[in-house]
Amino acid sequence: MIFASDNWAGASDAVMAALTRHNSGFAPAYGNDPLTEAVTQRFCDLFEREVAVFFVATGTAANSLALSAYAKPGGTIFCHAESHVAVDECGAPEFFSGGAKLVALAGPHGKFSPKSLSAALARHDSGDVHHGQPVAVTISQATEAGTIYSPEEIRAIKEVAASRGLPLHMDGARFANALAHLDISPAEMTWKAGVDVLSFGATKNGCWCAEAVVFFNPQDAAQFGYLRMRGGQNLSKNRFAAAQFEGYLADGHWLDLARHANAMASRLADGIHVSESGRLAIAPQANEVFAVFSSEKIAALRAAGAVMHEWPSDGLEAGESMVRLVASFRTSREDVDAFLALL
Amino acid sequence: MIFASDNWAGASDAVMAALTRHNSGFAPAYGNDPLTEAVTQRFCDLFEREVAVFFVATGTAANSLALSAYAKPGGTIFCHAESHVAVDECGAPEFFSGGAKLVALAGPHGKFSPKSLSAALARHDSGDVHHGQPVAVTISQATEAGTIYSPEEIRAIKEVAASRGLPLHMDGARFANALAHLDISPAEMTWKAGVDVLSFGATKNGCWCAEAVVFFNPQDAAQFGYLRMRGGQNLSKNRFAAAQFEGYLADGHWLDLARHANAMASRLADGIHVSESGRLAIAPQANEVFAVFSSEKIAALRAAGAVMHEWPSDGLEAGESMVRLVASFRTSREDVDAFLALL
Amino acid sequence: MIFASDNWAGASDAVMAALTRHNSGFAPAYGNDPLTEAVTQRFCDLFEREVAVFFVATGTAANSLALSAYAKPGGTIFCHAESHVAVDECGAPEFFSGGAKLVALAGPHGKFSPKSLSAALARHDSGDVHHGQPVAVTISQATEAGTIYSPEEIRAIKEVAASRGLPLHMDGARFANALAHLDISPAEMTWKAGVDVLSFGATKNGCWCAEAVVFFNPQDAAQFGYLRMRGGQNLSKNRFAAAQFEGYLADGHWLDLARHANAMASRLADGIHVSESGRLAIAPQANEVFAVFSSEKIAALRAAGAVMHEWPSDGLEAGESMVRLVASFRTSREDVDAFLALL
Amino acid sequence: MIFASDNWAGASDAVMAALTRHNSGFAPAYGNDPLTEAVTQRFCDLFEREVAVFFVATGTAANSLALSAYAKPGGTIFCHAESHVAVDECGAPEFFSGGAKLVALAGPHGKFSPKSLSAALARHDSGDVHHGQPVAVTISQATEAGTIYSPEEIRAIKEVAASRGLPLHMDGARFANALAHLDISPAEMTWKAGVDVLSFGATKNGCWCAEAVVFFNPQDAAQFGYLRMRGGQNLSKNRFAAAQFEGYLADGHWLDLARHANAMASRLADGIHVSESGRLAIAPQANEVFAVFSSEKIAALRAAGAVMHEWPSDGLEAGESMVRLVASFRTSREDVDAFLALL
Repeated sequence: MIFASDNWAGASDAVMAALTRHNSGFAPAYGNDPLTEAVTQRFCDLFEREVAVFFVATGTAANSLALSAYAKPGGTIFCHAESHVAVDECGAPEFFSGGAKLVALAGPHGKFSPKSLSAALARHDSGDVHHGQPVAVTISQATEAGTIYSPEEIRAIKEVAASRGLPLHMDGARFANALAHLDISPAEMTWKAGVDVLSFGATKNGCWCAEAVVFFNPQDAAQFGYLRMRGGQNLSKNRFAAAQFEGYLADGHWLDLARHANAMASRLADGIHVSESGRLAIAPQANEVFAVFSSEKIAALRAAGAVMHEWPSDGLEAGESMVRLVASFRTSREDVDAFLALL
Repeated sequence: MIFASDNWAGASDAVMAALTRHNSGFAPAYGNDPLTEAVTQRFCDLFEREVAVFFVATGTAANSLALSAYAKPGGTIFCHAESHVAVDECGAPEFFSGGAKLVALAGPHGKFSPKSLSAALARHDSGDVHHGQPVAVTISQATEAGTIYSPEEIRAIKEVAASRGLPLHMDGARFANALAHLDISPAEMTWKAGVDVLSFGATKNGCWCAEAVVFFNPQDAAQFGYLRMRGGQNLSKNRFAAAQFEGYLADGHWLDLARHANAMASRLADGIHVSESGRLAIAPQANEVFAVFSSEKIAALRAAGAVMHEWPSDGLEAGESMVRLVASFRTSREDVDAFLALL
Repeated sequence: MIFASDNWAGASDAVMAALTRHNSGFAPAYGNDPLTEAVTQRFCDLFEREVAVFFVATGTAANSLALSAYAKPGGTIFCHAESHVAVDECGAPEFFSGGAKLVALAGPHGKFSPKSLSAALARHDSGDVHHGQPVAVTISQATEAGTIYSPEEIRAIKEVAASRGLPLHMDGARFANALAHLDISPAEMTWKAGVDVLSFGATKNGCWCAEAVVFFNPQDAAQFGYLRMRGGQNLSKNRFAAAQFEGYLADGHWLDLARHANAMASRLADGIHVSESGRLAIAPQANEVFAVFSSEKIAALRAAGAVMHEWPSDGLEAGESMVRLVASFRTSREDVDAFLALL
Repeated sequence: MIFASDNWAGASDAVMAALTRHNSGFAPAYGNDPLTEAVTQRFCDLFEREVAVFFVATGTAANSLALSAYAKPGGTIFCHAESHVAVDECGAPEFFSGGAKLVALAGPHGKFSPKSLSAALARHDSGDVHHGQPVAVTISQATEAGTIYSPEEIRAIKEVAASRGLPLHMDGARFANALAHLDISPAEMTWKAGVDVLSFGATKNGCWCAEAVVFFNPQDAAQFGYLRMRGGQNLSKNRFAAAQFEGYLADGHWLDLARHANAMASRLADGIHVSESGRLAIAPQANEVFAVFSSEKIAALRAAGAVMHEWPSDGLEAGESMVRLVASFRTSREDVDAFLALL
């Protein structure tokens, strides 16, 4: 009963098979190989426009390098207070951008509103060099709270960003989970809603080590080859990333994986909701469930084999804790039901 | 006839099999899994002492992060003028160290002498803040010229470094090739000769994406977990790197691969040496051959299917160029002989 | 009626005289001169202990370099949300520290409580590399809201910091104003209350360009000479800073200047308090007054010659604005009374 | 007999008088004052075109920030091996540029040739991200060896730089000394010869603390306000710098000061040349004299009161050392003659 994180699973069989399939012979290094070219074209098809695609090894690198493409001296980046870039990347966005300041916006359930963005930007409005200069806005989709922005919500955030000339970045560490939930096209969830650059995560949802930075305005990527190389992220055997993406994206495999993870999370949530021993903290929309139990219950679940992380939360009653339960492509219905049977 | 680079090959069958073998079930992320623990122990056994081991995704990251562990403000790092850190990493060592200056030392065949190091250090001797402060010395083993430092040569360099209290870093992108040539133990080629920190490369010699930073004095790694995370190199599914290393290091597989590559390079060199249409620029010791041909000959070789890079060189005659021929674990005797037949 | 900022005044006559007095002959550059040595000793006497003192050109440099002396990868620095380091230094603290994250703490009137610091630190408590590592706590004295921490309040903050092994930095851009108000010794307001490093500002209170970083534990300054030089802050004619400090610190001149500025601010505040056309937003303790007026009143004051900045504020009624009025050593009673007469 | 450095002198009387003259009343901070505006116009007149001018506190800051205005990821900057930016700034250019690599060019007497620049650029010619990207060329005028580039030499260097689209920076720490020697206009020595950005040094030649970064293409300075503020170089009482420049530039005062310093250096050189106890290492053109004496002679000169630095030099005979003798605006004929009398 492993619900610790979706990165506790390995690679899906199809991804593994693609990796094996492309492991013969020789291919030019550093992405100058035919497979990388083909997968790049696959991304263009997927997003229904020309995109510039760069593979990197981690989601932290994807986010940090993507944001650094828009860095300026004294730059400020607007993000959610609980976002991965703000609290889980050890200052990598600050480091790669030469010291940008991340301005943390509050908001329930991992999402901030256009209004709170607008208010924060108003505090950075002077053109006075003392206050630095806004350079980007970033959202996570799905959010770190397991919720999802609708395309309309994304567009509303972009409108505020655009009023200040700012690009919108999307941290898509769980892009597939969000897309499977919304059941819209990749284009609709990104550039058609105003996203300029995307961290397209595939590792959590069935790859070993496959993250892509996708620029919807390829001219924004003019310096990105240098940024990536200087950042130690130019994979020499780049086809190993390309092969994973080929297997991942073929025949809707990636969305099948995400739908399964979402369904398992949904099943978990439903079971918790009807149980008498806990309650949902947030209505889940992707593959993460945040639930509140008594500390005794959590101990009992763990004793019975459940693996899950406790999560900080305000507004709990004494003796309660919040846990995060994450489902992945590899989570089985049996494990979910075994967990629910313990409630 | 692919002699462009050893990173044009994919992964060896044994490495691929290890990766497949460990792709089931769940394992803790970020290196807290049993396989990573076992492979870490494997490194300790290999080097006959306790070491601190950190996996990263690229050789550039390994070098840059390893050196950054010793960074100080105004730091200077002493390296060979043709070393990978100096000319092939897009300033990553400078970037990750917060702006260190790489002091380039000349020397024939990719190696610098203790004397030239000593002379350079003498120019940085004042304790005057204007001149910054030496923080590290780095050598490549095998070198970028396909040559190899003997343990005695390494020890002599370390003696100069130690006289200034400086650690010695080894860029082991082709560590196995050097070790196979010298036929000594990993300990003898590293810490017993004075190496403090090693970039242990496995990607070029049969892995997909597997590099390790090995600290021989684990206390030097006190901040390295943070440096790696901030550097975007903390692999979430870390076992995918561990699995590659497991397959790579098992039963001497890595040295078998390196011996084959070295043998193929040696065969190439011998054939060129006896041919009438070219000459060796440097006597090869690892898996790289630098040879001089007429431009016409190079064109003819390429037309016949040979893939290889031209390399900058001083002291050529008009109409000549130098090429680099790299053999890998996957280079076949047939390809070597076909190439030689063209001479 | 200039109340825009205390840095609109030039240098005091005594400071100017000292600068002129020391402008003859030759003196070693970069602080190796007898005057710098004498002024350094003056700092030791002033603080009743051995201190390490470094002159720099701006308060932003003093703060950023002081904090960078404690930088580590993924470092987090805890400060007030309205502090100069957080909102008025264009990301310099982030830049000089290699990308530290400033964690903004809320709190009324420019001060944060030990409790809010404790709560924020608890969110950075894991030892998990993802969250980075706390490296310093910083307070401003006087604060940017014109208020002052008591020594007991400073000590309480330091106790929380010390429980995590963190140094306490004090931004003393208006150090003299705070000290004059509290009427205690420099030692009592700093290291005796737990301060480890101080940005000792003299520019705002009567110098041209004189800021000092004062380390109360000189061993913390081991790398500071390099940090300052690399930061472009090693003044070649360092005696020009030393001379200003000599004039500034002689015979209590600096506290006379500050007492005057504080008294003028107090007179302004009293007049506003009893007037019918505005109200004090914060009870002033140093040389800054924050007052709320109707927009019409502000326009009228300006039309009559008053120079002052509007300041962001929550909780105003429609048609109101908050202004900041700053008194300096040069502010005259006549100007204050002329301003009050307009109310 | 102080010949240690030109920064051992204080400020000239005229500069000091200007500083005193402008020390009354109030003036807007951070350069928004009328005096700064007037001095900016003075720079435009001086250079016979619109320029963007920014004051900073040190020459190291001027150089580092000027170069950082052209920084790109993986950037390489081409400079002389003995230049101040390369060996005397503690890595500040690397730090402020986010890790640029300074490529050191050799050349006799502190100058590099267009040919050596061309050869170095050819090694950075590939467009391959591994090698980074050239971003700027920098020369010192006068050089650190006391020599001077002619306008034709500057133009020839710029032609090579321009062939790669690179800006040319001039480190003018001793700008006045060079200009006085060449006896041409400031425009002829800078933008008319191809200089894009200048570190205009005034500190060494008679100011306390006055350095300016001058952009001849103001659009290059678009981000410079932020770079300077983030770099801790935005002087709050900016008029103190402006006042120094006003006094410095008025009525040709600056060139009078430089002509005196140059004449004293020339007198020193002539005396050494005809003496029997030493020899000139380089024919001086500005205010620095490099001379070789026996170690015994140097000891004797010092015992008699001469203050001077030894300087590293190749090609000395045993028992010899090279010293640097620097004349400043304050160097007296008496001191020069007293020194010469000792020879």
